[in-house]
Amino acid sequence: MNETPSPSVESARRDLFARVDSPADLKRLTRAELAPYCEEMRGFLLESVQSTGGHLGSNLGVVEIATALHYVFDLKRDRIVWDVSHQCYPHKILTGRKGRFASMRQTGGLCGFTHPAESEYDLFHFGHAGTSISVALGLAHGAQHESDPPHSIAVIGDASLGAGVAFEALNNAAASGQRVLVVLNDNEWSISKSVGSLARYLSKIRRSRTVQRANQEIHNLLSSIPLIGQRVDRALEDASEVMRHALVPGHVFEGLGVTYIGPVDGHDVGELVDIFERTKHLDGVVLVHALTDKGKGHPQAPNHPERVHGVKGTAKIAGAESAKLPGKVAGTKPIAGPSYTKAFADALLKLAERDLRLHALTAGMPSGTGLEEFAERFPARFHDTGITEQHAVAQAAGMAKAGLRPVAAIYSTFLQRAYDQVFQEVALQNLPVLFALDRGGLVGQDGPTHNGVFDIAYLRTLPNLVLCAPRDATDMQRMLEFGTRYDGPVCVRYPRDNCPGVEHIQPAERREMAAGKAEVLLEGGDVVLWAYGALVQQALEVAERFARRGVRIGVVDARFAKPLDEELLGRHVQTYRHVFTLEEHQRAGGFGSAVLEAVSRLPQVRASVRILGIPDRFLEHKSTREEQLAEAGLDPDGIERVVRFALSPQWV
Amino acid sequence: MNETPSPSVESARRDLFARVDSPADLKRLTRAELAPYCEEMRGFLLESVQSTGGHLGSNLGVVEIATALHYVFDLKRDRIVWDVSHQCYPHKILTGRKGRFASMRQTGGLCGFTHPAESEYDLFHFGHAGTSISVALGLAHGAQHESDPPHSIAVIGDASLGAGVAFEALNNAAASGQRVLVVLNDNEWSISKSVGSLARYLSKIRRSRTVQRANQEIHNLLSSIPLIGQRVDRALEDASEVMRHALVPGHVFEGLGVTYIGPVDGHDVGELVDIFERTKHLDGVVLVHALTDKGKGHPQAPNHPERVHGVKGTAKIAGAESAKLPGKVAGTKPIAGPSYTKAFADALLKLAERDLRLHALTAGMPSGTGLEEFAERFPARFHDTGITEQHAVAQAAGMAKAGLRPVAAIYSTFLQRAYDQVFQEVALQNLPVLFALDRGGLVGQDGPTHNGVFDIAYLRTLPNLVLCAPRDATDMQRMLEFGTRYDGPVCVRYPRDNCPGVEHIQPAERREMAAGKAEVLLEGGDVVLWAYGALVQQALEVAERFARRGVRIGVVDARFAKPLDEELLGRHVQTYRHVFTLEEHQRAGGFGSAVLEAVSRLPQVRASVRILGIPDRFLEHKSTREEQLAEAGLDPDGIERVVRFALSPQWV
Repeated sequence: MNETPSPSVESARRDLFARVDSPADLKRLTRAELAPYCEEMRGFLLESVQSTGGHLGSNLGVVEIATALHYVFDLKRDRIVWDVSHQCYPHKILTGRKGRFASMRQTGGLCGFTHPAESEYDLFHFGHAGTSISVALGLAHGAQHESDPPHSIAVIGDASLGAGVAFEALNNAAASGQRVLVVLNDNEWSISKSVGSLARYLSKIRRSRTVQRANQEIHNLLSSIPLIGQRVDRALEDASEVMRHALVPGHVFEGLGVTYIGPVDGHDVGELVDIFERTKHLDGVVLVHALTDKGKGHPQAPNHPERVHGVKGTAKIAGAESAKLPGKVAGTKPIAGPSYTKAFADALLKLAERDLRLHALTAGMPSGTGLEEFAERFPARFHDTGITEQHAVAQAAGMAKAGLRPVAAIYSTFLQRAYDQVFQEVALQNLPVLFALDRGGLVGQDGPTHNGVFDIAYLRTLPNLVLCAPRDATDMQRMLEFGTRYDGPVCVRYPRDNCPGVEHIQPAERREMAAGKAEVLLEGGDVVLWAYGALVQQALEVAERFARRGVRIGVVDARFAKPLDEELLGRHVQTYRHVFTLEEHQRAGGFGSAVLEAVSRLPQVRASVRILGIPDRFLEHKSTREEQLAEAGLDPDGIERVVRFALSPQWV
Repeated sequence: MNETPSPSVESARRDLFARVDSPADLKRLTRAELAPYCEEMRGFLLESVQSTGGHLGSNLGVVEIATALHYVFDLKRDRIVWDVSHQCYPHKILTGRKGRFASMRQTGGLCGFTHPAESEYDLFHFGHAGTSISVALGLAHGAQHESDPPHSIAVIGDASLGAGVAFEALNNAAASGQRVLVVLNDNEWSISKSVGSLARYLSKIRRSRTVQRANQEIHNLLSSIPLIGQRVDRALEDASEVMRHALVPGHVFEGLGVTYIGPVDGHDVGELVDIFERTKHLDGVVLVHALTDKGKGHPQAPNHPERVHGVKGTAKIAGAESAKLPGKVAGTKPIAGPSYTKAFADALLKLAERDLRLHALTAGMPSGTGLEEFAERFPARFHDTGITEQHAVAQAAGMAKAGLRPVAAIYSTFLQRAYDQVFQEVALQNLPVLFALDRGGLVGQDGPTHNGVFDIAYLRTLPNLVLCAPRDATDMQRMLEFGTRYDGPVCVRYPRDNCPGVEHIQPAERREMAAGKAEVLLEGGDVVLWAYGALVQQALEVAERFARRGVRIGVVDARFAKPLDEELLGRHVQTYRHVFTLEEHQRAGGFGSAVLEAVSRLPQVRASVRILGIPDRFLEHKSTREEQLAEAGLDPDGIERVVRFALSPQWV
């Protein structure tokens, strides 16, 4: 009975939360009301995110930080940059959006990240880690000539701080003379356990609050030592600065010219308000080190913070997400196989059993890339470098040079971070690194920051790289076998969705997997669809629809975007009247462009070639990948429409 | 007279240098002979690099480091990674290549960087900064199972250490448990003066050698303090680790788990040998902080280290490089205008005078990008962030959001480092950042690490970006005017060469500069050349050759690769029989592919469209850009050949 609040207390608390729909409302609360307000917000988050899905743990962790920042600063005038911005839910609640939380990450609903289209309190639409300090510094530069310049604030997690760009920014910001407040939200967990020395260093600080007090005593002691002779006097003076650093737990930051404050309890909203008030009067770069518990308030959080990082909603069935089990029938959908991620992970395990040279790397995504079982079974051959794609890829190059067969599993969108290392360290040296590009395509609820729809273009232009994409779980296995045998870099790309549950051709009857060899799945009359990767399923579905009306449509699984099967293509542009290319990628520079380039080198061409892909704009988040495919005209309906139009003389 | 060594001493020294053609020869020298050997090598470098051109200062700085490493380690078995690798000349001298120094950076000659094709002592061909620690760590991972694993060594400059990827690597390497030796070559100068707090921190260490000795006394003093009561006893114990850090000048590194040794005199070859010997027995990541003088031994170095970073050779006339003055006639070459870099810098100065919102950013290349005068005249609007392209671009996004007009001048090849920030921070937010892509194209002596031949492909696939390239100095000015007015991101690309001295159309008579508007320079008969950027000159030259024979060839300055002038293109593919696209870029995914994509959307097309660009391989260094253009078939001869072939029915 003691655990249930009395009705009057309960209603007063609901009252607090109900009263606040804007930062102005928040500022009307007393300091004493902030803590209960935060508790209520936490309850709201637990309820609503459990229902809608989304990033739960990180948002539970920053309730007090967000509240204190909005209480102290005027974030319409002052500028706040949320790193990655997946921890923006409290900020959204505080800025008039709590009524829309049921629509979180759904089509037409709230975005899971900050988004300028949603609110004037959201300056940027971000989803990649580590750039908030750079951006906040840029904002400070832009405001420096104002008489009372607004504050520039970056809120960044401990794992994001390990990203190279964050270090570049801290290093430069401190030297720039600009005023920037960095709030380090340190929960000792990024998505998985943070890796690297910086994480250890931060956790050392965490444990050192008593040491801090002890140091103070040392300091007092030193001050009282009688000075024995001139040399020691001088020595003490020279060393004073060094000593000062020793007495501050953040000496690594202080060494970089940053004013370090902390560690502070990131769930003590009163302490946070006090500290943020004080930082208002400090110049230069100030780093407030706030210790938080990821998933604070969640019953499972203390033992399994990773489980509460992202949760799947219970309220809506999110298409593909709901159909992870092989053979499960979801409404009228075709039978679904395992996710491509699982197909990759399973295939890799099999290969790793046979080949001791095979190592797996991830940049902070052991779970998202499906490598957790690999990590358990082959810990010495598993490397999670943290949110450091650049380093992971350059390291893989070194490993390959030393005779290993590194497999770098990195989301398509995050490999952009390592583009230069793919170029210099891997492609230019022609080293056998296998890149597993998960989330290659449209990702549904995460939106444009996470859509992996540029990789074919940015990779295809680099010499030496081989690009391929499997259409199902069987070809995933075969492509990984091919890729780990191939004497050069290979990129295998696949989307965030399930493999087809029913495969088109039996494994034994398939064409051998070889660089630049496509596979003809269906022969057609006037039209052939050249599909790349998972969209082969859509092509087959379209062909089936036409077949029902007695029209034969050819379907080719291109398998390789580079090198292309130019021989087969050369025949098809003579024998067919229409060639359509299908890819889950921008129309500019992708697989279709590769086809056009090859065709442009042929002397005679009968067929017209058309590219079906994603139009030249950023596609916003939708509830499912299917809806996004439909928006791009890449669902069976969209493809059928275009094919019918091409055939219209016969069809009208 | 005292300064001239006696003939016998002189010949003995020459003897040392002559005797060493391999690491095995070096190991036969006594320790006492190492210093005079180094001095002699320095004399050789001064002479030969002054004559051939190349990176002089950085190589003079690492003579002793390279010598000591080869003396201590077996670098055929142990692995060495030279960061950037422009400081590899002493290493090349020590590994049998001193006889080929006259061919440095010339066609068919020695490469200015390490290159596996040249020597088994060169593991990688690198030219971009900061990745050596990652790669060395990867090599260590690959060797860890050997019973006596080889050493992995990275030699990295202080400026490279400021690159985010180097921080990522240090952070991860220290936590990995692998054995890696990092030699920090700290000359307090990168290419220009190092920027950022890390540089200040390192220079603080430089100055602290006396402080170091003083600290030792403090330490002794502390040890002798009588322990007064239990609390202080406990406090001392708790604080001991913190104290230890305070007494080591490299506490920032120690904080990251790295064993720091230094600072040591990087020109005392004996001390270096001693220290490297000692590190052989240390586990984990060891950082040896060596202080060097960039340009050591060069008369101009102490005052102008930047001047001795890269020198132009006196022995050979390097084509374009020699013709920087407007109107200068170089042999049979057409009259040359200012370099594109200078045209950019001059135009930017004019714009900056009128527009206070205009800021310029560079990532460690104030001289190479031509921004030195800008920095002098508008210091508050000039930002050199160091070798941190990621941070520079993200910061520019913040500046643009705050109302400024940032111009980020970054070499095409180095913008690859910031690809993800171009995507997320700039393109996705549609912010008005102007990217000035210098070295967009083939760079001659620097080779494939520096060729900027992928940017059209990797940028074009991103929505919102506008891509353009000027054909001469007048259009450079007009494009920058356009770009700084445009309400979104714009990329202006230009090569490392001179603008034409004679411009084709008077400024007043040119077509207005507007997004997606090309300019017709010549109308033709059957053939039209659509050229992008500087290659318009080659197109005009080809048209002139044909005109002399009475054949009219059309020439279009496309101006924009994105958006394309689809209206003009649509007309041309109906009126011409052959459209050739010309670009200084890979054929895959570039300007020509954009043309093919646009044409593929047209219902009826008469013309064939062919792409002239760089073939799908990495082009090695040559003496001049012209030679590389010829290799790619992009010189007037190559283009003429292709056009003649297309017209062959009439020509045969």
